Amino acid sequence: MAQKEVLPVARAVLQQCLHAKLQVKPAEQDSEAQFVEINRGMVIYICFFKGATDDILSKTVSTLLNLRLSESDSGKMVSVLDLPGNLLIVPQATLGGKAKGRAMQYHNNISKEDGLRLYTDFVSLCEKELMEAAPGMIVKHGTYGNRQVLKLDTNGPYTHLMEF
Amino acid sequence: MAQKEVLPVARAVLQQCLHAKLQVKPAEQDSEAQFVEINRGMVIYICFFKGATDDILSKTVSTLLNLRLSESDSGKMVSVLDLPGNLLIVPQATLGGKAKGRAMQYHNNISKEDGLRLYTDFVSLCEKELMEAAPGMIVKHGTYGNRQVLKLDTNGPYTHLMEF
Repeated sequence: MAQKEVLPVARAVLQQCLHAKLQVKPAEQDSEAQFVEINRGMVIYICFFKGATDDILSKTVSTLLNLRLSESDSGKMVSVLDLPGNLLIVPQATLGGKAKGRAMQYHNNISKEDGLRLYTDFVSLCEKELMEAAPGMIVKHGTYGNRQVLKLDTNGPYTHLMEF
Repeated sequence: MAQKEVLPVARAVLQQCLHAKLQVKPAEQDSEAQFVEINRGMVIYICFFKGATDDILSKTVSTLLNLRLSESDSGKMVSVLDLPGNLLIVPQATLGGKAKGRAMQYHNNISKEDGLRLYTDFVSLCEKELMEAAPGMIVKHGTYGNRQVLKLDTNGPYTHLMEF
């Protein structure tokens, strides 16, 4: 019998940064655009797929925050908790894209409602873990569904992919 | 019989940019660091795995340059060739990482020698395709094996993952 392909329910791309700035509210007629920013730490681009539930969040957050993805001052690879570093979380539905011809399709992405709920809980869990393990560090995050206007300054992004 | 898992031989992460600047030579005692930069276009982070050969390069480059990953001024998704946009190619061995415990391992990455050769040919093919289809646009690229000190300015990175 053919082995059943196990599809991931979440995909994250991780990049290390010295500074990152993200728009959380676009400019409007009577208000300027609003931004959040972090200094040294990690940018987490996150996308949830169909089938993702709250059950995966604890493991996902724990893995991303404890994996040795960040370069310390001495050149050693350490986790963002051990660095210690800040976190910028960027919702990124495009990560779920599959090419069909020249177009990208996103049929496997979770619904907007479920995605927003999971994203919100994911951010909360990151905040909780970072506050406990790396006090003084901050978590900032993008607005789900918005355009993610991002500026990134790195000393080497060390781009990693993780699927759950 | 269990279905054989087909492992990818190349992985690319794509991000759209308004401006990107990459160090191609670090500062030394008697010389300043050197950088390349592009304006609007696409950043290609690329990693080759064991088993990758020149045979895949043509399809890989054609796919990445023709997929509709870039947002045009009118908000339509178009290819980087149609935008038209510039290219910044960043060698990124970390993309081949697999978690083992808290550490990342890169056992499936191609050897440095083969990786350098494929990367060099990949860059050449991108230059050729862009020159033909989008004259006036430029290709810049990082130095294989170096630290990729990168600054990125986006209007939304639209981060995509592609495997070949």
